Amino acid sequence: QINADRLWSTILETAQFGGTPKGGVRRLTLSEEDRQVRDWFRAACEDAGCTVSVDALGNMFALRPGKDAGKAPLGIGSHLDTQPTGGKFDGILGTLAALEVVRALNDAGIETDTPLCVVNWTNEEGSRFAPAMMGSAGHVADLPLAEILARTDAEGVSVGEALDAIGYRGAVPLGTQKFSGFLELHIEQGPILEAENLTIGVVEHGQGIIWYDGRITGFESHAGSTPMHLRKDALATLSEIVLAVEKLAVDLGPNAVGTVADITLARQSRNVIPGEITFAAEFRTPDAGILEALDKGLQAAVARIAEKRKVSVALDTIWRKEPTHFDPAVTGAVAAAAQKLGLSHRPMVSGAGHDSFHLATIVPTGMIFVPCKDGVSHNELESATKDDCAAGANVLLHAVLALAGD
Amino acid sequence: QINADRLWSTILETAQFGGTPKGGVRRLTLSEEDRQVRDWFRAACEDAGCTVSVDALGNMFALRPGKDAGKAPLGIGSHLDTQPTGGKFDGILGTLAALEVVRALNDAGIETDTPLCVVNWTNEEGSRFAPAMMGSAGHVADLPLAEILARTDAEGVSVGEALDAIGYRGAVPLGTQKFSGFLELHIEQGPILEAENLTIGVVEHGQGIIWYDGRITGFESHAGSTPMHLRKDALATLSEIVLAVEKLAVDLGPNAVGTVADITLARQSRNVIPGEITFAAEFRTPDAGILEALDKGLQAAVARIAEKRKVSVALDTIWRKEPTHFDPAVTGAVAAAAQKLGLSHRPMVSGAGHDSFHLATIVPTGMIFVPCKDGVSHNELESATKDDCAAGANVLLHAVLALAGD
Ligand SMILES: NC(=O)NCCC(=O)O
Ligand SMILES: NC(=O)NCCC(=O)O
Repeated sequence: QINADRLWSTILETAQFGGTPKGGVRRLTLSEEDRQVRDWFRAACEDAGCTVSVDALGNMFALRPGKDAGKAPLGIGSHLDTQPTGGKFDGILGTLAALEVVRALNDAGIETDTPLCVVNWTNEEGSRFAPAMMGSAGHVADLPLAEILARTDAEGVSVGEALDAIGYRGAVPLGTQKFSGFLELHIEQGPILEAENLTIGVVEHGQGIIWYDGRITGFESHAGSTPMHLRKDALATLSEIVLAVEKLAVDLGPNAVGTVADITLARQSRNVIPGEITFAAEFRTPDAGILEALDKGLQAAVARIAEKRKVSVALDTIWRKEPTHFDPAVTGAVAAAAQKLGLSHRPMVSGAGHDSFHLATIVPTGMIFVPCKDGVSHNELESATKDDCAAGANVLLHAVLALAGD
Repeated sequence: QINADRLWSTILETAQFGGTPKGGVRRLTLSEEDRQVRDWFRAACEDAGCTVSVDALGNMFALRPGKDAGKAPLGIGSHLDTQPTGGKFDGILGTLAALEVVRALNDAGIETDTPLCVVNWTNEEGSRFAPAMMGSAGHVADLPLAEILARTDAEGVSVGEALDAIGYRGAVPLGTQKFSGFLELHIEQGPILEAENLTIGVVEHGQGIIWYDGRITGFESHAGSTPMHLRKDALATLSEIVLAVEKLAVDLGPNAVGTVADITLARQSRNVIPGEITFAAEFRTPDAGILEALDKGLQAAVARIAEKRKVSVALDTIWRKEPTHFDPAVTGAVAAAAQKLGLSHRPMVSGAGHDSFHLATIVPTGMIFVPCKDGVSHNELESATKDDCAAGANVLLHAVLALAGD
């Protein structure tokens, strides 16, 4: 059994790094607050007897030796970065529960056969730098290092510059740390477990994701004296695109979502017809065929809207990740651990993206979900109970024991 | 006849104060650039023999005596502030043409019976501080001084602070400067004169205007894991409002326009469903009944959209100006002047708002329009020809001679 009090107090302790008045956390990847939590994490892992290494993207690996020194470790962990106004559980629970598993094994004097490696992945959130799950994408070579390092935030700072600024561009080449498997605990970030009064989600699939960057170029002119039929209104164009994204997701649902966000008007004046807008859009669904249909549908809708309104719309697909299917041996171990601990559970699809989606492309991988209040995440109000966090960490511990051998 | 070269060179000279690389002007009201052009204007008026006074809102009055010293002067002028990315004619032509009328009368040694007063009104644009036509609203007591002084820009700076910052909070109480009438030359800012190949618009009516400030409060949550039917998406809500404004204006047209602009998302993250957005909306039409129908229509649409989407939408009417009808004696003098000069002309409705709308509520008032290229305004590409500017200034001169007596 893990130590529920110790796990909970580490969650509260790290929530101070970037803590907000509303009880959330603002800890953008590679920010000063991220440096603080990384320093804390490195020290805590070393205190727990691990050897910490950092790769070229700032991914942190804390190695705990096993009896079988020649074997690649079983990876456990998640991420410590947050949304601009995020909560204190998203990613953090999974990283600190992995640390707690090591601490609990230390307390019990257990050395696993397979070594363990507690991981903190860089920029899982994708809010400061796109795409999300960037560190793990680099690790599995889904994106080339040079391209990732060159990606910039809204202020024009590159990933490479941000790594240097906080001293976390590590010496270890990407992908050097091998794994024999990977396991990640996370809050559900959706409403299902809570609604069904269940404690553990055994995550079998992950949604496919497409991210777009869009730019609408209309024409600025006077809001009072420009007749309706002569307008090239970028905001009216955007509005049709937003509703088209929504309608596509609803029409091709129930297992699809679509969102437009991160809108920027090039120039703001209340009596000027908006002439230029950038936006971000995305679709997600567990079904590869539906993902393709959503993409095709949006391209067609955008072309139709742009032609009708005589404006130009550029829509770039900046990221596409096909649906993920986790390894039955790992998900089986998760279900068995929950069963053994007497915890209610069900198979699930992950709505959010996770680093485990990338790990699943190279090693047997699985995920464990626990409920969060009202299914809310990416919000300072995000909340999970101490009992559910402890239950998730215990399932992680027992799945680790089953997969790594004791 | 006015001096066309001199008028044109003052337009080019003042375009340097806040001039942009694209040939436009960025001279927000009460900014440092506005101070520069005000200092220039004061000196030029004094050089032309006028006495300049400044009132409590920074409105500038340059008095040229007449034979009948006891009579209130005929006001002529417009404004020197611009949009954030505006042109070099909007307001400026009318102010500098009024100065040119005084210079031309000086050259010809003419003293009018009625004194003349060249005016530069503060914050006609309404882009930095709402509403538009703020200085003239204060002058005619359409808005109380204290309320105007307290209005703030996006950075939280108040009108009072901005006046003090550039040294243009004058000693003269609002409304002290009386007028016997008012005349304003302006570019059309619409496509009609150019399309009909005419030189002079005799403005008989001005559109009524309603300005709204809106705030949508939905709920931020995860773009990947929040099912479509559980969302409270502020951007999808805004999109329906934008299209409702557009549809109302089109349906109640052809003589109505509606615009949404100046959108701000409280927090930006591409994988967070937008939770809070502020926006500005407006309607304009020359028909008081249609203005009322547009307002009622929007209130009903917003209530319907908010209820359907379970979000809250606050819609504040921050300004309402009923349609303007100019004085037949003044518009008659304008038409007669155009006729006498052999310039093609037609009666018009002003699409944009103008300080003359306020003056028309207290004294006989009229306006003169000249064409602008492609009808474009509130854009750095705004353009008008030297000949059309000179033609407008000559009509202004001859209407002044008719109304003020020579
Ligand atoms: N788990 C999580 O919130 N990931 C952020 C990336 C995304 O799914 O958009
Ligand atoms: N003439 C002009 O552009 N006025 C600005 C105020 C407005 O009409 O919105």
